[in-house]
Amino acid sequence: MTEPNKRVLGVTGMPGSGKSEFAQFASELGYHTVVMGDVVRARVVEEGFEPTPEMSKKYMLQLRKELGETAVAHLTCIEIDKLIKEGKNKLIIDGIRSQAEVNHFRKHMENTFVIIAIHVDPELRFQRLKARGRKDAPMTESDFISRDEAELKLGLGETIAFSNFIIPNNKSMEDFKKRSFSLLKELEG
Amino acid sequence: MTEPNKRVLGVTGMPGSGKSEFAQFASELGYHTVVMGDVVRARVVEEGFEPTPEMSKKYMLQLRKELGETAVAHLTCIEIDKLIKEGKNKLIIDGIRSQAEVNHFRKHMENTFVIIAIHVDPELRFQRLKARGRKDAPMTESDFISRDEAELKLGLGETIAFSNFIIPNNKSMEDFKKRSFSLLKELEG
Repeated sequence: MTEPNKRVLGVTGMPGSGKSEFAQFASELGYHTVVMGDVVRARVVEEGFEPTPEMSKKYMLQLRKELGETAVAHLTCIEIDKLIKEGKNKLIIDGIRSQAEVNHFRKHMENTFVIIAIHVDPELRFQRLKARGRKDAPMTESDFISRDEAELKLGLGETIAFSNFIIPNNKSMEDFKKRSFSLLKELEG
Repeated sequence: MTEPNKRVLGVTGMPGSGKSEFAQFASELGYHTVVMGDVVRARVVEEGFEPTPEMSKKYMLQLRKELGETAVAHLTCIEIDKLIKEGKNKLIIDGIRSQAEVNHFRKHMENTFVIIAIHVDPELRFQRLKARGRKDAPMTESDFISRDEAELKLGLGETIAFSNFIIPNNKSMEDFKKRSFSLLKELEG
């Protein structure tokens, strides 16, 4: 069992499970969230490119090719270290997709790292993703399934199975918020 | 979201997550559990062999070779159909390890099937498995990890990620029992 007073929390879950809602709730308790996709997008902009989803994906694949499968985790650690130096000590990393990334964070943070998974019934996730209507939302069930499968291929299933904590999110937003607060307060000790 | 009044519940989770405790709680509400490993062991005995763990594993691999990866799910369905004919209508299947098996059950039961995953922090799971002290309990962390990895290879991570419900089991047995009863009652509608 992980000990209380951990400084950095990782959050994982299938698309549409509620990771950004969790980060939103946590922000009400003073947490600052680093989204791994944003770290990549910032690099794309720094290099002078347009941060379109296609460009970000291309850049991420190039990074992985050059630096290995923990390339994005590595860049995220640089951002985390910067925030810690600025005095931020309640930090969340959103977007973890594999055990290789978890192990990278765990090593970098000398075990002051725990990982929280969020779980939703697949049919409900699909409905929520459609309702959310982001630009990249799956419109058909086959889109949804292929997106899920792409995530699982990166190792997301294993990351969920090996998470330290799991929050069920099949019910209302209010129920999910209550469960999220309860876990965050438990982790603060 | 799955509808209430489902007849057959599948239960899944990593080794030591609490699947048999869940079945025990459910039995207090009148549920009968079919353990997939027991279905294999019964066949081994029928064929006149000693149902040792090695023999059961060998037999299972032979079955999978002959009938495909859903071989054990197929035999389990025969047992489930028998129990339904006997008038049992609160049934649990314990030991599901892959989406192929889930899909086989879903097809056979015409969607009257839901799958429940149980989740525990890996370090806590390891401690509980050691404390439980079954003959096949992992004694070292490396035993534990290789057993986990063998399960994940069969597709257990995906099955957990795609489950309809998840029960966190990081706290006391009492807390787990309360959560299990709450879900079972919710499913009964």
